Amino acid sequence: MSTIFRSNQRPADALRPVRITRNYTMHAEGSVLIELGNTRVLCTASVEDKVPPHQRGSGAGWVTAEYGMLPRATHQRNDREAARGKQSGRTQEIQRLIGRSLRAVFDLRLLGERTITLDCDVIQADGGTRTAAITGAWVAAQDAVHQLLASGKLSQSPIREAVAAVSVGMLQGTPLLDLEYEEDQRCDTDMNVVMTTAGAFIELQGTAEGAAFTRAQLDQMLTLADKGIRELLALQQKELYE
Amino acid sequence: MSTIFRSNQRPADALRPVRITRNYTMHAEGSVLIELGNTRVLCTASVEDKVPPHQRGSGAGWVTAEYGMLPRATHQRNDREAARGKQSGRTQEIQRLIGRSLRAVFDLRLLGERTITLDCDVIQADGGTRTAAITGAWVAAQDAVHQLLASGKLSQSPIREAVAAVSVGMLQGTPLLDLEYEEDQRCDTDMNVVMTTAGAFIELQGTAEGAAFTRAQLDQMLTLADKGIRELLALQQKELYE
Amino acid sequence: MSTIFRSNQRPADALRPVRITRNYTMHAEGSVLIELGNTRVLCTASVEDKVPPHQRGSGAGWVTAEYGMLPRATHQRNDREAARGKQSGRTQEIQRLIGRSLRAVFDLRLLGERTITLDCDVIQADGGTRTAAITGAWVAAQDAVHQLLASGKLSQSPIREAVAAVSVGMLQGTPLLDLEYEEDQRCDTDMNVVMTTAGAFIELQGTAEGAAFTRAQLDQMLTLADKGIRELLALQQKELYE
Amino acid sequence: MSTIFRSNQRPADALRPVRITRNYTMHAEGSVLIELGNTRVLCTASVEDKVPPHQRGSGAGWVTAEYGMLPRATHQRNDREAARGKQSGRTQEIQRLIGRSLRAVFDLRLLGERTITLDCDVIQADGGTRTAAITGAWVAAQDAVHQLLASGKLSQSPIREAVAAVSVGMLQGTPLLDLEYEEDQRCDTDMNVVMTTAGAFIELQGTAEGAAFTRAQLDQMLTLADKGIRELLALQQKELYE
Amino acid sequence: MSTIFRSNQRPADALRPVRITRNYTMHAEGSVLIELGNTRVLCTASVEDKVPPHQRGSGAGWVTAEYGMLPRATHQRNDREAARGKQSGRTQEIQRLIGRSLRAVFDLRLLGERTITLDCDVIQADGGTRTAAITGAWVAAQDAVHQLLASGKLSQSPIREAVAAVSVGMLQGTPLLDLEYEEDQRCDTDMNVVMTTAGAFIELQGTAEGAAFTRAQLDQMLTLADKGIRELLALQQKELYE
Amino acid sequence: MSTIFRSNQRPADALRPVRITRNYTMHAEGSVLIELGNTRVLCTASVEDKVPPHQRGSGAGWVTAEYGMLPRATHQRNDREAARGKQSGRTQEIQRLIGRSLRAVFDLRLLGERTITLDCDVIQADGGTRTAAITGAWVAAQDAVHQLLASGKLSQSPIREAVAAVSVGMLQGTPLLDLEYEEDQRCDTDMNVVMTTAGAFIELQGTAEGAAFTRAQLDQMLTLADKGIRELLALQQKELYE
Repeated sequence: MSTIFRSNQRPADALRPVRITRNYTMHAEGSVLIELGNTRVLCTASVEDKVPPHQRGSGAGWVTAEYGMLPRATHQRNDREAARGKQSGRTQEIQRLIGRSLRAVFDLRLLGERTITLDCDVIQADGGTRTAAITGAWVAAQDAVHQLLASGKLSQSPIREAVAAVSVGMLQGTPLLDLEYEEDQRCDTDMNVVMTTAGAFIELQGTAEGAAFTRAQLDQMLTLADKGIRELLALQQKELYE
Repeated sequence: MSTIFRSNQRPADALRPVRITRNYTMHAEGSVLIELGNTRVLCTASVEDKVPPHQRGSGAGWVTAEYGMLPRATHQRNDREAARGKQSGRTQEIQRLIGRSLRAVFDLRLLGERTITLDCDVIQADGGTRTAAITGAWVAAQDAVHQLLASGKLSQSPIREAVAAVSVGMLQGTPLLDLEYEEDQRCDTDMNVVMTTAGAFIELQGTAEGAAFTRAQLDQMLTLADKGIRELLALQQKELYE
Repeated sequence: MSTIFRSNQRPADALRPVRITRNYTMHAEGSVLIELGNTRVLCTASVEDKVPPHQRGSGAGWVTAEYGMLPRATHQRNDREAARGKQSGRTQEIQRLIGRSLRAVFDLRLLGERTITLDCDVIQADGGTRTAAITGAWVAAQDAVHQLLASGKLSQSPIREAVAAVSVGMLQGTPLLDLEYEEDQRCDTDMNVVMTTAGAFIELQGTAEGAAFTRAQLDQMLTLADKGIRELLALQQKELYE
Repeated sequence: MSTIFRSNQRPADALRPVRITRNYTMHAEGSVLIELGNTRVLCTASVEDKVPPHQRGSGAGWVTAEYGMLPRATHQRNDREAARGKQSGRTQEIQRLIGRSLRAVFDLRLLGERTITLDCDVIQADGGTRTAAITGAWVAAQDAVHQLLASGKLSQSPIREAVAAVSVGMLQGTPLLDLEYEEDQRCDTDMNVVMTTAGAFIELQGTAEGAAFTRAQLDQMLTLADKGIRELLALQQKELYE
Repeated sequence: MSTIFRSNQRPADALRPVRITRNYTMHAEGSVLIELGNTRVLCTASVEDKVPPHQRGSGAGWVTAEYGMLPRATHQRNDREAARGKQSGRTQEIQRLIGRSLRAVFDLRLLGERTITLDCDVIQADGGTRTAAITGAWVAAQDAVHQLLASGKLSQSPIREAVAAVSVGMLQGTPLLDLEYEEDQRCDTDMNVVMTTAGAFIELQGTAEGAAFTRAQLDQMLTLADKGIRELLALQQKELYE
Repeated sequence: MSTIFRSNQRPADALRPVRITRNYTMHAEGSVLIELGNTRVLCTASVEDKVPPHQRGSGAGWVTAEYGMLPRATHQRNDREAARGKQSGRTQEIQRLIGRSLRAVFDLRLLGERTITLDCDVIQADGGTRTAAITGAWVAAQDAVHQLLASGKLSQSPIREAVAAVSVGMLQGTPLLDLEYEEDQRCDTDMNVVMTTAGAFIELQGTAEGAAFTRAQLDQMLTLADKGIRELLALQQKELYE
């Protein structure tokens, strides 16, 4: 499909090696380390018996996400957001995306007046942290829901279907699946795609960093994303049920 | 194309009435009021002879955007962000989008070590404020560049082409162009599309608020967006050069 | 009265052309654009059925104001206060002044446990923004109260009388009414005067930026202010009732 | 002049007992404790060989003030501003007033590129803290300047004349000089007056808390303020030179 | 015991002159100025009929402390924490230490659902401000409790015993009691010791600024601290009951 | 030595199992995961060619630390400090302790004008996170220095000796080494001890949470701490050089 050189001789349409480790830490109701190549994100799901003000008294619950990056998860050290006293626009954008993506597959009424908070913390970054976070957070949420079901607090799962995400890009006219950091830097377009088991889109965010992208290129990228997300959805099920 | 009822008997594939008023205020190098139906955004372009730290000494300039909403631009009063002491995640997301969209059509080296700041302030909101801001900010930027050319500070325009944006959505299976606030609230999907004169994408952001959207629905929405943006690009030229 | 040169051959004791536009935006209960020459301030009145903690359970309401300036309302762009994360001392001083001035003509018990928030946002600045804000905010408050009366939520107006404000100054020994920005910069004294229909003072704030001012000069300035405010009070009535 | 009952049988036109203690603390270049009845404010003057950005390279210096209140200076404990993370609007208004008042009697060019910071901290509050701060800060500034002259860093004093301040008010139609906290709470009008040795005004800030005040009442209050300030100016000289 | 030169020919094992002044200000339930040589700290105890969330409904009270330093309490002016918008790590460390030390001698259940806040504000600093604050705050707390007992709000004192604190250090191999600022700067080790009437430790905080300290040196410092604290405990009793 | 029941039948004077993993992440100059039982802290050392203002031009470098805890490192989820907009007093206290402990074994002049930042992030907490952070951070710093030596940027190591730390406590009269979270909660005293290879103290911080502690108990705790730290110092060397 391409003559672009990728590390480890990865084909243009291949994911990096994916590893999903459940119960990575011991306190959270769901705790998943997801690794895509060198990208490593810890996703924990915490259940609390309270909801934010806008849901109080509604009978329905809430699902939200927070995102962070350890200061030296990256090539250069980044200032700690807690020390600077505020989260960057990038951080807020990402955590809003993760939260929306997870809420899209939840029936909040079935959750009851509870909040599930998905904390996605990047231990090591090499591109694709936000999409890895979505894929991993769904597994952590599933584990937390299983625990609510097992303890009898819920009698029916509020999770309607699975959700996973991947990045795609255009590099010198070639569509690439699952960009590493170096590839992301060189790409003309970077697109994050979030899809459900049913194969429909939850979120689509494409940005032309260099040359603008055409409709034909968009189609090529979406085809790649569809392929990658199907593989990730299968891996989630395998990790949970095998 | 549709049996959805829209205010003022607007067809599904029609823009609201658009009005672009240049020189709306007197101090800024570019000052444009853009109105789409009841949505009104003031876009000013300010030129300063300095660049942020990451561009210093590079010989290249910078283009950035800030976005704000007057507290009572909306149905219910929103807290003033200056009083709360921070900009919301939504605000940051929007101003990053506007900034990226404008930078995409600028040759920053031709701008020289200058910054153009595009302040987009919503006077009245009725849906589509971020896309209106992009369309209006481009006209304000163009006016500011004309002034730099007229004064001899620049000999060649750093603006490569025009950029405009529009929102589209899916409501009960029907694709709609240019959503009003009420429509946006009822839509299953809300998508913001940013395109250039050449007809290529700069940004694409689609979010399923209700049901996920299929690839076929995506295609329908993009076709509508393409139509709307072409009309907006024509209006920009008309307002500038006729 | 003077040989000071003012723009547009304005006499020392004349106001700039004043324009008051009601219903300038559509969502607020009161929405007034007030223009004094090139100074343009949008004043909206928002009614909410709640009061701040210090009034809860008192049966009485509250009237408060917030003030802001669009970043490019001025000659040079000012940093956006929302982006800096705090309101300047100047902003807080001004919004406290507007709030006190409006509360002075309200019977808060007649308002009931409601809050009227007056948002005064400067679209374009050319001196006298705080006094224009007071004059305009009173009209917006009046419109909001009319709406409460019309809807039957109030049976008696809580507004006891009108209030308006103007700036005066001493320039090279000559008292001037209604200072433009350039005049304000050159004046030795800048005084803001807030008066009611009954001709009494609500607020008086005089500051010697250059030479201190004598009691005789104070008297001259107050005479001018009295003249200007009477004209503004008449314009408010005309705009509301003719 | 009045039948208003004041504590300690104080006449309506009398100051409370005033005490000015120089060298109250040992590190500052000027350190003055000023007491008006139970109000006690520590005013220190700190000299630093640097100026804020807007004065750099101008050859001229800067004079500025900061104001604070110990948490239990008042009847009820107030939250510590450092713990809340911001200064209130009241604090900022007051420190801006003190700074302007002191700058008005300084020739900043004669000061050279130095900053004098006047820290006014209220140890105990019983009304009139801002005016006491101005009167005390001037003595602290004078001591700091004397030290600069003595050390040969300055050859000529940059202080042109003295400045002092007092509060006056209208209580049930009677003008009162130098309000205690309880009086201030009951007054219809509260006015702060800042005057120089020459008998001219630097600042005049009158606020009608209850009934608006007439021009005749203003005249009565200014006459009282004039009397009080003359006494304070004499006390400053006595404390410095006797 | 030593040939180290200390100001005023103070022996290595001697405290500086100590002065405890009760009722230093008039509003607080307890108000103590404590002076150790040139160090002066105002400690006020404020009683409020509410507790922080973590104690609500427990029937028990709370004791907490806040610490501040006037900007010119020190040789060089320090930025005002309220102006900078946050308390330094040092300030927080100190106020947490004072709070823990006082809580250690309180039976919070006997206090009932009340909070005693100990505000420790440094008027003048010359070393040992945090330990002076603890010693003084205990006297202020005692006065506040006496007032609660006298008014019948409490029938039994919640204070179990007294607490006092002192600093010790190692300077060129010699242990020193109660360090002045200059000594503190030159010491290899600086240790703060908090002890109760019973002679047991509440807090022990030793830091090697220069050379690390041995166990033998630790013993020498603790012996000195024990001596100093016994003297301070005696002074507290004398001031309260003689 | 004791009849206190500890998990896994751990003797009172035994450390939990310790594991030190170097090169845990790939970007940092030093990256160490330290585990003490269930406590897991990631310590990275980042080298930057700049120093904070107070060291600029001195020729000497700086060593500093930051500390954080992932929101769900603990039993209950803690609010993310970046989201709250400030670091807690506890966080600041801990990072100041880590920074001082590491600086104590550095010769900052030999480091040159560089900063080593030690980021200590708690992945999972079960007591003793701050002392584990010190022990692990020293290994990370050592790795970073080795890299500076290997690359020729330094010719001599600026690290004078090793440093390690451990917590000890008194539980019902029994001294315990290396407290787990549950033990820490039940202890009367909690003490953190930082020692160097030479067996001397860098920091000693003891707090009586319940009953105060006597000098004899202090001695018992220090003997335990000495034993534990010697074991940790040996483990550091083994991990680095075997």
